[in-house]
Amino acid sequence: MPHDHLSTTFAALADPTRRAILARLALGETSVTELAAPFEMSLPAVTKHLKVLQRAGLITQGRQAQWRPCKLEAKPLQEAGSWIEQYRQFWEQRLDRLDEYLRDLQTGQKPG
Amino acid sequence: MPHDHLSTTFAALADPTRRAILARLALGETSVTELAAPFEMSLPAVTKHLKVLQRAGLITQGRQAQWRPCKLEAKPLQEAGSWIEQYRQFWEQRLDRLDEYLRDLQTGQKPG
Repeated sequence: MPHDHLSTTFAALADPTRRAILARLALGETSVTELAAPFEMSLPAVTKHLKVLQRAGLITQGRQAQWRPCKLEAKPLQEAGSWIEQYRQFWEQRLDRLDEYLRDLQTGQKPG
Repeated sequence: MPHDHLSTTFAALADPTRRAILARLALGETSVTELAAPFEMSLPAVTKHLKVLQRAGLITQGRQAQWRPCKLEAKPLQEAGSWIEQYRQFWEQRLDRLDEYLRDLQTGQKPG
């Protein structure tokens, strides 16, 4: 597992189960048992995923004795989003150029 | 390495060298040798990172015999960005609530 913050976040997001857990937690806090219910995996397997998410700061777990609810934390997602956002201009330019190319094809011009 | 597309993208982004390579390529196509220059690592080590990026579809490499330029591809970044974007509402609500809380503190109201 890499040590810089952003790498830890991206590594944590690189798993469909972990992303599904985050999607569930975006709806509200919930217990580990409830979180585990929709997945066809053992509770220890789910707990392992939760640990990865916790280490990345993507979730926190409450300290209430019986019910230790898991909670989604916004900051790492926001940072990962900001990093990707830098490239928005890049992909939008690409799409603009594709639009232009297709328009040129339609009007019978030689794409330049 | 996971098999779904989004997981492969996030796993490829989970490394500072690979992110630096993408940042360089956002400025324009370049050769592997040029790409490797700023990094204190062997050419094979850089090539290994490039293979991970290629497998994720984040870069492509030209087929010109001498100079096989690497090129940034927008689509996987855009998809990863869209996934994270779903959570924007979530973190913006959090910030709104924090704003409200701080405003309440300033005006001497008991935060509700």
